[in-house]
Amino acid sequence: FVNTWALVDPVDDPLPGVGTYEDFNTIDWVREKSKDRDRHREITNKSRHSTMALLLSISDAFSGWLLMLLVGLKTGAIAGGIDIAAHWLTDMKEGVCLNGFWFNHEHCCWTSNETTFQERDRCPQWKSWAELVAGSSSGPFPYFINYMMYMFWALLFSFLAVSLVRAFAPYACGSGIPEIKTILSGFIIRGYLGKWTLIIKTITLVLAVSSGLSLGKEGPLVHVACCCANILCHLFPKYRKNEAKRREVLSAAAAVGVSVAFGAPIGGVLFSLEEVSYYFPLKTLWRSFFAALVAAFTLRSINPFGNSRLVLFYVEFHAPWHLVELAPFILLGIFGGLWGALFIKANIAWCKRRKSTRLGHYPVIEVLVVTAITGLLAFPNSYTRMSGAELISELFNDCSLLDSSQLCGYKSPTNTSGSVGNSLGDRAAGQGLYTALWQLALALLFKMLITVITFGMKVPSGLFIPSMAVGAIAGRLLGVGMEQLAYYNHDWFNGWCSPGADCITPGLYAMVGAAACLGGVTRMTVSLVVIMFELTGGLEYIVPLMAATMTSKWVADAFGKEGIYEAHIRLNGYPFLEPKEEFDHSSLAVDVMRPRRSDPALAVLTQESMTVEEVETLVESTHYSGFPVVVSQESQRLVGFVLRRDLLISIDNARKRQEGVVGASHVLFTDHTPAAVAPEAPPPLRLRGILDLSPFTVTDHTPMDITVDIFRKLGLRQCLVTHNGRLLGIITKKDILKHMAQMSNRDPESILFN
Amino acid sequence: FVNTWALVDPVDDPLPGVGTYEDFNTIDWVREKSKDRDRHREITNKSRHSTMALLLSISDAFSGWLLMLLVGLKTGAIAGGIDIAAHWLTDMKEGVCLNGFWFNHEHCCWTSNETTFQERDRCPQWKSWAELVAGSSSGPFPYFINYMMYMFWALLFSFLAVSLVRAFAPYACGSGIPEIKTILSGFIIRGYLGKWTLIIKTITLVLAVSSGLSLGKEGPLVHVACCCANILCHLFPKYRKNEAKRREVLSAAAAVGVSVAFGAPIGGVLFSLEEVSYYFPLKTLWRSFFAALVAAFTLRSINPFGNSRLVLFYVEFHAPWHLVELAPFILLGIFGGLWGALFIKANIAWCKRRKSTRLGHYPVIEVLVVTAITGLLAFPNSYTRMSGAELISELFNDCSLLDSSQLCGYKSPTNTSGSVGNSLGDRAAGQGLYTALWQLALALLFKMLITVITFGMKVPSGLFIPSMAVGAIAGRLLGVGMEQLAYYNHDWFNGWCSPGADCITPGLYAMVGAAACLGGVTRMTVSLVVIMFELTGGLEYIVPLMAATMTSKWVADAFGKEGIYEAHIRLNGYPFLEPKEEFDHSSLAVDVMRPRRSDPALAVLTQESMTVEEVETLVESTHYSGFPVVVSQESQRLVGFVLRRDLLISIDNARKRQEGVVGASHVLFTDHTPAAVAPEAPPPLRLRGILDLSPFTVTDHTPMDITVDIFRKLGLRQCLVTHNGRLLGIITKKDILKHMAQMSNRDPESILFN
Repeated sequence: FVNTWALVDPVDDPLPGVGTYEDFNTIDWVREKSKDRDRHREITNKSRHSTMALLLSISDAFSGWLLMLLVGLKTGAIAGGIDIAAHWLTDMKEGVCLNGFWFNHEHCCWTSNETTFQERDRCPQWKSWAELVAGSSSGPFPYFINYMMYMFWALLFSFLAVSLVRAFAPYACGSGIPEIKTILSGFIIRGYLGKWTLIIKTITLVLAVSSGLSLGKEGPLVHVACCCANILCHLFPKYRKNEAKRREVLSAAAAVGVSVAFGAPIGGVLFSLEEVSYYFPLKTLWRSFFAALVAAFTLRSINPFGNSRLVLFYVEFHAPWHLVELAPFILLGIFGGLWGALFIKANIAWCKRRKSTRLGHYPVIEVLVVTAITGLLAFPNSYTRMSGAELISELFNDCSLLDSSQLCGYKSPTNTSGSVGNSLGDRAAGQGLYTALWQLALALLFKMLITVITFGMKVPSGLFIPSMAVGAIAGRLLGVGMEQLAYYNHDWFNGWCSPGADCITPGLYAMVGAAACLGGVTRMTVSLVVIMFELTGGLEYIVPLMAATMTSKWVADAFGKEGIYEAHIRLNGYPFLEPKEEFDHSSLAVDVMRPRRSDPALAVLTQESMTVEEVETLVESTHYSGFPVVVSQESQRLVGFVLRRDLLISIDNARKRQEGVVGASHVLFTDHTPAAVAPEAPPPLRLRGILDLSPFTVTDHTPMDITVDIFRKLGLRQCLVTHNGRLLGIITKKDILKHMAQMSNRDPESILFN
Repeated sequence: FVNTWALVDPVDDPLPGVGTYEDFNTIDWVREKSKDRDRHREITNKSRHSTMALLLSISDAFSGWLLMLLVGLKTGAIAGGIDIAAHWLTDMKEGVCLNGFWFNHEHCCWTSNETTFQERDRCPQWKSWAELVAGSSSGPFPYFINYMMYMFWALLFSFLAVSLVRAFAPYACGSGIPEIKTILSGFIIRGYLGKWTLIIKTITLVLAVSSGLSLGKEGPLVHVACCCANILCHLFPKYRKNEAKRREVLSAAAAVGVSVAFGAPIGGVLFSLEEVSYYFPLKTLWRSFFAALVAAFTLRSINPFGNSRLVLFYVEFHAPWHLVELAPFILLGIFGGLWGALFIKANIAWCKRRKSTRLGHYPVIEVLVVTAITGLLAFPNSYTRMSGAELISELFNDCSLLDSSQLCGYKSPTNTSGSVGNSLGDRAAGQGLYTALWQLALALLFKMLITVITFGMKVPSGLFIPSMAVGAIAGRLLGVGMEQLAYYNHDWFNGWCSPGADCITPGLYAMVGAAACLGGVTRMTVSLVVIMFELTGGLEYIVPLMAATMTSKWVADAFGKEGIYEAHIRLNGYPFLEPKEEFDHSSLAVDVMRPRRSDPALAVLTQESMTVEEVETLVESTHYSGFPVVVSQESQRLVGFVLRRDLLISIDNARKRQEGVVGASHVLFTDHTPAAVAPEAPPPLRLRGILDLSPFTVTDHTPMDITVDIFRKLGLRQCLVTHNGRLLGIITKKDILKHMAQMSNRDPESILFN
């Protein structure tokens, strides 16, 4: 008998399936990390015996770094590809290059010899659709043709995007950050980070961005980076087989995503730490920094922007700011906070509507309609027609002497006595600037409204760029206002803004506004400031940025503690235990645990007195994911915990393969055979191998704030409750989330998964 | 009876002393955090009832930010004062200003009208001691006078420093970072962060730095910042009364310290996160960032360097580097790692010698002898005579056209045909440079040796500057070597270093070397790279820096996993549970717990059957810090845990104040009066209020790696061990540390404190 038992002893040779998880379930961090330490210990022990094993052990130690290198290279390459493709398709909406349709506007004109410095964008090879069709570029008919072609391409791109997502990878839609946060906290969503999601998301992201919808590629790039990391994990058994180790890599990948999105490696690492990650040990900090740098340099080698810059919006000015300007900066913070809170409420309401009404059944039509509205309204206004990133870039920039943009349409300095050096100083706004301001105000209104219905559609859609665009417009408007105020009322700004001096930088206001709005929507703080700091490379603007983001966060928090990602997690009912939110109620473990007072008693197994049939009946009559094992029903003294999945697989396997195990066999969770079992009884089924002998317990008097802390910090899935040494009940992560929902007057049934 | 009991019920009105800690003990993080949540909940509940309470609740919420502001301001101001004073006293060793002895050299010459751009440092008002005494500045006799005065001041300063430390604040010596790490992990060292330590450390730090010893002020500034924070905590009851909350502030203060030391706020925050902190929630991240910025800007307003720069070593070059140069950078990494490992071993051996031999009894003589040796050897060599910070600054800088320093003593470019622009390009080393190289090589040897015996003396002494100096010298030497190699062998560097081009930047090599050596000694990684990044403000040098720090860490780790701070923690026997080190052995909780198999049974209290006398006898016959309470001796079913200190205070108080409690009174840990107690018995002593009803338990089968993880993540002091629901034993933090010491073949008795 001993031999046959030993064959299936799950300790030495686990059955396939034992120790793995089902889809939409929460992993047990403690068990996963313990498994990895066992593996590591085994490799270390072996390495003492042979050189081969020592080499294996060294390669194992460096496999993490190698993986990070690969993730950085792959993500950087994909991000470069996305940038190039999106640039090309966006220009396709305007016209085509005669030298070859695969050139984008800028690239097309590089080869032209006739290009002068000021007209880099104009060359005979590049034809707008109107020029191609009607042979002319001005007048109402060519304008109409351009308009129609713009709409045609926009609708085509968005149709392709939404169809591809629906047909091949439904998980490719949205920004992906809420789901990645949930996955990193220990949830399993199979296929969410798979290769189909990666391929389809990459393609549809390019299409969605090019279609002119009010969305960005920065959030989805985080998802793309995580897909890359997850796929590359399959190369290394260390990461393939261990859910906890894989999540370390995914945390680093989130940093890589932001690093390539903004060209800000340090900001990316802090973003992952602050916003996305759940378990972020120092080793991961260091590795994600490495991967973020590799990705940033890969992207720079690809050089998609053609200027060998690492950052998305390079800011050249280094003008000082004055303490008085903190007031408008804080004003921008308040605006950002208010808009953030409002946006979240409106977007969630709209998404709820999509979920509950018939709207949700027609995603393709929804996308087409929104694209049509966006295109129709965006084309006439040059600030909405250009892509979000271009718009922000233009708003961030300060006017230089040669600048021909409308935003720099100041009057010539006729009143100050003709000194050329002063022409960069303060000037009255001219007609061009006033037109630009009007257009910007309209663009602000448009962006604020259209983003609410765009985010959450069934196409890849990021929020960073639209939020920043809203803030940048508001900031630029305020900045120009301040500048004109200073110009016409120099005496108000006595002492620091003398006539003729260039004392207010509207581009800085745009930057601060962008940070404030992004902060209001996402509630990022340090990482946001650091990303902005990396854009400028100077410490001088940290204080304005910090004042604005802090104000924005406080204002937005006053209307609701959740950022947009947490709100979407809650909307989808994912089991996510927010690490930032304090549990502020005085309940005890006994108030939260199951069974409740009116419920039937807890379903437990005994360590040696139950038969296989009894166990099967008990398991099948309930839907619990696991069962505590006790010494006896009377004493209720806890021995261990066994998972439903492991139990069913083991019994099933024993019935099939193990000689003599029948329904009447005793199930033994002990090492020894109990004396009470009759000698003629069928051979017992020994299951100590699948029993978790170290289940977590708390006493019934443990305050829930401590219990929540334990769940968060150790990453538990369940915890048993005892009173004076007797087993009393069980608390799962879902119970805690339901209790928290109840405490804040939300529907506890909104938590959908285990 | 009910009334008198209620009067002393410790839940409502804790006795003075209950819930506090003794010196050299470990705090219970869970209890402290729970206490703070209770306090917060109470304030929130009250705030619903009256406007006054609402205002109080708001002020409570903002008190953390206010405290951070104050910490930033105070630390920034003190750091500015230290910089100015140290600068003045350092110059005092050389000479005196005739306009007023309180001017330092640079300041003295500011007022001089005769100063030209090139001779900023020379002016008639500033007299060297030789000029003052002998009336001349050249020749052997004036040199001798300068030498003697230099020695005199150095000895005077170091004598004052060590005497002040000995007389008033013994805790003011050393860098303080090992102790701060230990305190942040939850240890209590009373007075270590007190006002006397602050005052004396500030004064003696200035003296020690000025005495010319091979030490820096950067590490001690972290201690100074933590003292400031600790003292300011007393203004806010929220932080004064709660050890866990106070440690959050101290973590932020560590960031502030590095921020003012290097002018690198982001690097400071990451330093605190990576190197010092134990419990670093996101809220602290954000607050420490704020405080670090405030401190940096306060320091800039004080402007101690007179150049309105924030950073300590401002680097102006932005020359590109080539991939081939990674080889020498990695070489510098290997050097840094080797030196770091060697330094730690040598320094620890020397400190052990100091502890165990009679050397330790004469700290004043030791300091004077080391100062004398340092002064005698340092004065003749201009690179060792200048302060460490000045040396590093000079080594980091690249040669400009007008530079008159010896390090820029290149031959004039006679062979390239006379173009002036090329004179910055590559040139052959001249006589001046060769002399400088010899002096630097001697300085390197001297610094490497003298730092080993300097660090750990009874004066404030930081390691950052000496380590960086060693690395910077080595890096500069290698950099000049590479430069000359490139000059004489242009064909080797084909394709990227054409003749006449300035392709190798020796200053960059110095920077990389400094990072490598500092990394080798402290094992910092991300924070080190970020600090260096903030010094230059450009992303272009991150890859060289990272390659060097990574190599340095790996090389140094091969010789011993501990950084210098962990080594000193271990040397002092502090109970510090390293969060980075994985526990890699397969022991179970049952192997570590007390009592061991041969020991007498665990000392437990029963919940209602013991009398006051029995309890007192049990407590006095042992030295344990706490006792488990069980239902009965037979069942060993766990009810709770009571601390020795709380128990003694409560019994003592009850005997004094509570009517009728005598030795024969029953001690009740339950709510009800047991039926077994005779009605004529003396009134029982009810102690449920001091009983911790939610002690942490693990089963005897729990692997130690999981147990260590629980201790680390939750910050436990002790944990009870059960088997099948029966109490079996107890594991304390000290037991774990002893076990870990044993596992790595160290003396388990080296852990000195609880």
